[in-house]
Parts: sequence; C-alpha cells; structure tokens
Amino acid sequence: MTAINQHYLELQGSYLFSEIAKRRTKFAHENPHAELISLGIGDVTRGLPSAVLNAMHKAVDELAEPGSFRGYGPEQGYDFLVQAIIDNDYKARGIDIGANEVFVSDGSKCDVGNIQEIFSDNCIVAVQDPVYPVYVDTNVMAGRAGKFNIESKRYDNIEYLACTAANGFKPSLPQRKVDLIYLCYPNNPTGMTLTKAELQGWVQYAKENNCIILYDSAYEAFIQETDVPHSIYEIDGAKEVAIEFRSFSKTAGFTGVRCAYTIVPRELKGFDAEGNAVRINDLWNRRHTTKFNGVSYVTQRGAAAIYSEEGKRQIKELVDYYMTNAAIIRDGLASIGLEVFGGINAPYIWLKTPNNMDSWTFFDKLLMEANIVGTPGVGFGQSGQGCFRLTAFGSKENTEKAVERIRKLSL
Amino acid sequence: MTAINQHYLELQGSYLFSEIAKRRTKFAHENPHAELISLGIGDVTRGLPSAVLNAMHKAVDELAEPGSFRGYGPEQGYDFLVQAIIDNDYKARGIDIGANEVFVSDGSKCDVGNIQEIFSDNCIVAVQDPVYPVYVDTNVMAGRAGKFNIESKRYDNIEYLACTAANGFKPSLPQRKVDLIYLCYPNNPTGMTLTKAELQGWVQYAKENNCIILYDSAYEAFIQETDVPHSIYEIDGAKEVAIEFRSFSKTAGFTGVRCAYTIVPRELKGFDAEGNAVRINDLWNRRHTTKFNGVSYVTQRGAAAIYSEEGKRQIKELVDYYMTNAAIIRDGLASIGLEVFGGINAPYIWLKTPNNMDSWTFFDKLLMEANIVGTPGVGFGQSGQGCFRLTAFGSKENTEKAVERIRKLSL
Repeated sequence: MTAINQHYLELQGSYLFSEIAKRRTKFAHENPHAELISLGIGDVTRGLPSAVLNAMHKAVDELAEPGSFRGYGPEQGYDFLVQAIIDNDYKARGIDIGANEVFVSDGSKCDVGNIQEIFSDNCIVAVQDPVYPVYVDTNVMAGRAGKFNIESKRYDNIEYLACTAANGFKPSLPQRKVDLIYLCYPNNPTGMTLTKAELQGWVQYAKENNCIILYDSAYEAFIQETDVPHSIYEIDGAKEVAIEFRSFSKTAGFTGVRCAYTIVPRELKGFDAEGNAVRINDLWNRRHTTKFNGVSYVTQRGAAAIYSEEGKRQIKELVDYYMTNAAIIRDGLASIGLEVFGGINAPYIWLKTPNNMDSWTFFDKLLMEANIVGTPGVGFGQSGQGCFRLTAFGSKENTEKAVERIRKLSL
Repeated sequence: MTAINQHYLELQGSYLFSEIAKRRTKFAHENPHAELISLGIGDVTRGLPSAVLNAMHKAVDELAEPGSFRGYGPEQGYDFLVQAIIDNDYKARGIDIGANEVFVSDGSKCDVGNIQEIFSDNCIVAVQDPVYPVYVDTNVMAGRAGKFNIESKRYDNIEYLACTAANGFKPSLPQRKVDLIYLCYPNNPTGMTLTKAELQGWVQYAKENNCIILYDSAYEAFIQETDVPHSIYEIDGAKEVAIEFRSFSKTAGFTGVRCAYTIVPRELKGFDAEGNAVRINDLWNRRHTTKFNGVSYVTQRGAAAIYSEEGKRQIKELVDYYMTNAAIIRDGLASIGLEVFGGINAPYIWLKTPNNMDSWTFFDKLLMEANIVGTPGVGFGQSGQGCFRLTAFGSKENTEKAVERIRKLSL
C-alpha cells in the first residue's frame, strides 16, 4: 500500500453543506408532503440573463465548424474576457490592472482553495471566524492547520479572527505574526462589509506585518452603499499585499455554468528560503498553466456578455431581485424582534437565534416546524454559534412565504 | 513578505508547449507569409458532433427559466452523465464500476495534476520517459521530485522508466521501491500501447510491490486493435491497485469544452502513518468536493450526448477521420525511410529524427524549411532525445500537405 496525505485525517466531519443535505434528505423522506423552502446553500435560482444565453448559443454554434472551432484556449482566459474584466471591473473604478494579472478560472471555490499551494507549508494562516469552510479545509489538507483541538473545536495552528455582534463583525487583529490573511467582503456568511477606511487599515496592517491578504470578493455585485469598496485595489498600495478573487456565480447566475477570476498583481512578492523576493504572479501562472486547462469557451463567451450594455442592465435586475428578497427577510425577522445583520450589501442575512438556541437546534426547528432549510452559523466556525444564515437567493414568492412561516413560529 | 512554496523553484524552464508557442510566434512574426501547419500540440480541429451541439443548445435553453435552471450540481457530476459513463465505458466491457467511483471533472490535466495531493509527500514516484510533463511538474511542486540534476537533466528523486525503440516502448521496471506509477496508454507522446498481458504484468507488479498505478487513458477512443485493453479494469484485481483517468477532449473534440472523468475504485487502499488502511476513494471525494465545484451543466449535457446512438456514430467518424491522418503520416514518413512508431491505436506518431539530429534541431528544421510545427521528443524527457512527435489532429488536407513537404526535405 501507498502512504496517504496524513493531513487529510485531520479534516473534521463532512463538509457543512453535505451535512445539511443529509438532514434535509432525511426530513423530506420522512415528510414527503412537506413543501420545503431552501434559504440554505447560497445558490441562485433565477434564469440566466438573455444576453448571456444568446452569447452561449452563439459560442456553441461556433464550435460546429472547423473554421470557427475553438480547442484549447489560453489557460488564463481569452483576451475578450480578460479585457472586459479589466475595463469594467477595474479601469472604470480608476484601478490599473494588467492583462497578465488576470486569471480566469472555473470558480472562486477552486481558486481560494488552490491559492495556498504556492505558499510555504510553514505559513501561518489567519481566517475570519465565522468563515467560508474552504479556506480552512484546504489549509488542513496542506498541513498548515495543525491538530484539531476537540475542546476549542479549532485547529491549533490557525489564527481565528472573531467577527461577532460585539465587534460589529469587524475581524479582530491577529494575536501573533501571520503570513496569509483570508478576508471575505461582502462577507459570507455574515453579509457584513468593511468601509474603505477599515479596509485601508488591513492593507496597512499587511504592509507593516509582512503578510498577504487573500481577498475574496465573490459578492461584490451586491454592494449598494457608496462607502463600501468594490475592490481591495481601491486602496493605495494594495497591489503590493493582496490577491483578489471574483466570481460570476452570484453576479450573473453562473453557479452551474462555472466562471470566476483571480487578480494576482505583478507588484506582489513573497520570499524564498534564502530571503530572495519572488513574484507571486509567476508562481500562480505556473500553477494555473500546469494544473488547469482553461474555462469552457462557451462559458467564457457567456461571461463576457455580462459586460455588454444589455448584460449589465440584466444583471442589475437580477441583483435587485435578490436584494429585494434580502430586505423582505431583514424587515420580516426584525419585525418579530430577531436581531439581524447583513442583507444590505450582500445576499446573506445573519441572525442571532432566539433565546440563545444553538445553531443546529435552530436549524432542526426551522426544518421541522417551518420546513425551511437555512445554514447553521456554527457550521462556519465557533464564533458563529448561536447564529444562523439565510440567503436571499430564493424566489420572491418563496422568500415571502418563508418569512411568513417564521413569523408564525413560537420563538 | 510571505514565504513561498520553495519547491516551485525546482521547476525547469517553461512548460514545453509555451516554448513551442514562443518559437512559432517568433517565426510567424519574421515570416508573415509562411503558411504554417501545426502538427504540434495535441489539439483537435474538427467541429463538435451535432449530437453534442444539440444537447448543449438544449441545456443553455434550460438555464433560461427558474423552473429548469440548474445551479450548483453535484461536484462528482450529474447522475445522467455518471450513469452513461458506467453503462457504456465499463458495463459494456464487463467491468463493474459504481456511481460513487466516478468523478466527473473539467479535464484530465487537472485530475492527473491534482491526484498526487492525496498521497504522502514522501511517496516515490515513477514516470515513463518520455512523459506527459504534468505528471512530473505537479510532483516537483509538491516536493516529491527532489533536486534537478543538471548533468542528467532529471530529478534526483523521480524514478524514470525508459521507453525507447530498444525496449519496444514498454516501460522498464523500477530499479527501487516506488509508491506511485504513472502509466499512460495509449501513450502520449509515443502513440504506443500495451497488450492485455503486458498490462496484467504491471497490475501484478503493483500488487506485489504495494504501489498504486495512475493510469491515464485519455486516448482510449483511438484504440483499433483487439488485444489492446480499453481500461485497466479489464485486468483482474486492477481495482485494488489502479486509478483510471479518461477524457472527452480527444474522444469528442472537447479540448475547449472541458470534460473528463476519473475512476477511483472503492477497493483501493492506502495507509496512514500508523499503518491503518485508508480508502483512497474517500480522500479523493473529499478533495473533489472541497476544491472543485462541478463541471458546467451545459458541458455535462454535451458529454452525455456522446453516448447516444447518434453521438457514438459521430464520434466514431471523428476518430476515423483522425486515424486516417495518422496512417497518412505513418505511411508517408516510412516511405522516405524514417523510422516511425505509434499512430495505429493513437493519434500520435513518434519518429526517430534522421541522422540522430537532436529533437529541437529537428523542430527548428521542420519549422524553418517545411513550416511545420511538431513537438520535440526531448521535451517529454531525456529518453525522447532524437525523437519527434507529430499529431493526427490536423485537417486531412493539411496533413497530406505536411507529409508532402517533409518528403521534399533533404534529410
């Protein structure tokens, strides 16, 4: 027999959403007539914008004939998409991003999962708590997390930055020297944001403490307020300390179509064992071209269509649709006295469970009594205990129905 | 600054195909009127089968409306595709594969690149030489390859299994205990195959020596002769020692559409630091669900259509088209006295360069004098020195033209 990667054995339980699916399936099996509403996993439900559909049909047609057929494309993405990203997501906000700084991929989950690989196994990693589980699990797999402590329910070697109601969901500063800091804004799961000044503080911190910020901005499209930065590169000097992840999944309904991108600035440096500076962009480029073969041509054409005038109008409608749902949830839950956060610049509503119920108990209660599937806050980390996430990605009708059912619960 | 993954610094030069692209671009720039023919990178050129196109159009239409919209799918692939794979690629050959042993992905390059991650960093890796560079580079990145030796042009800690004309391109046995053996059949780059009895020998070797075979069978669809196994699982007991990689890239023109799959049998075990057996399937499932988010729904519908009666007929036509090209190259080059291999059960022709010319010199000669882009054998490993790869993926017209040009060269 062959020796396995021992670090995998430190992974805890199954992935959060698998556990939810298991409980949901069991309930549905035992209650075949219950009309379940899912406000759980952050998956979109509306159809794709017609601009995207048309572009995809056209791309499929191109693949029919040798003259217009496209085989292997550039692993980093086609120019037509890379340029649209640069012009619309960056240049339009006064940010200068070069074509060789953009890496198109099949999803931010993949990118935020794989990025750790180009750094030393000895790096100390900081994550927000609550946290998107992929940041932690992929570092566990690489052996950076250390042992799982059954008492604290945390990994010994990961630095957890608590985000709670008490600190307004602004991450606490690391208590020791860290090398990599995962920040997610607008935040999944809390739906909260940082102001420009606050994000500036983190860029400053990274500079002073020689660390790199891995900035997951998958929910950027949902930002409504003016003081919330759309990109970390709005902050002066951020290109020297930050990698940014963006996704079309939620922006344009691409969860099943698969497209995202990552910005790795040329200014960003790490150092090797002898202390020499090494360009991080080169390392990621090498990884991306060696272990990945580019995104489907059809998908890339669909993604580029988002940046057409028609596409922009249509995704704004999509975002507005979901943000109306977010307001329905926020207002509905607040009206029965629940404490709610998020939902203003993000499609997630984070609520404190009534009577300090623990997260999974509230999950089961909501499932059994209201037939609603949500996500237990503790599934995102210990600071999420007693909290619960609802998403705005349902239909408006279901969202209204779900809020009505919650209002009728005895809480 | 943050410490990088030091192993990346052991990677040699740029990826083979980048170097080819560089020389090609330079030549095209300096010779704008030269009519270049590429028989280099193994990329298909024909249009997609209409069965696939129709299925993709239909899938795009489904994404238009909330009722038929598909968001996140199962990371391992949709049942409709998994079942089609099992029934057609395995059950039809008397092989029993379970649905939880199939992992649909966006490409075999990704899978063969990522698979090493679930094994210990201390595993000793054996590769065929010549070899598809991804097997080596991904192990270099993980630190399993050791130092690059400038004299031998090989990594200290990788076991190279020479495949040369002298041994009929059958890999030599490892000279030391190894843990992971990458085998690629039909082989890229040599185009050669193993008989069932020979593959049986390798399965036996793996059993007796406690190693795992990583069997890359991306070119399975091109097998024409009856004694060549289509799957390693045709060999009794192979499920205990082998992982198999398959791809739709070459089978059905999916290089730009991105779909492949990997079989990880439930019987396959590794061991942990305490010597306990661990199911490899569980580890890969955990990796796949944590760092990957499934293949585009549109792509999966396209892939499933390959297994319809119409789809099967159309991909047979595609394969026949390319194999006709392979015969044109084989026969043409043999007729001028070149020594050629492969091209019978694979779309690759492997030739010995005339007058023991080194591979890159022949590359440049072919580029300059015949305006043909091929692939230098040495780019795949030291045992490929003095060899050269041509692919059958061009148009018939270009293939004939290329052979005609080569026949006119003074060699």
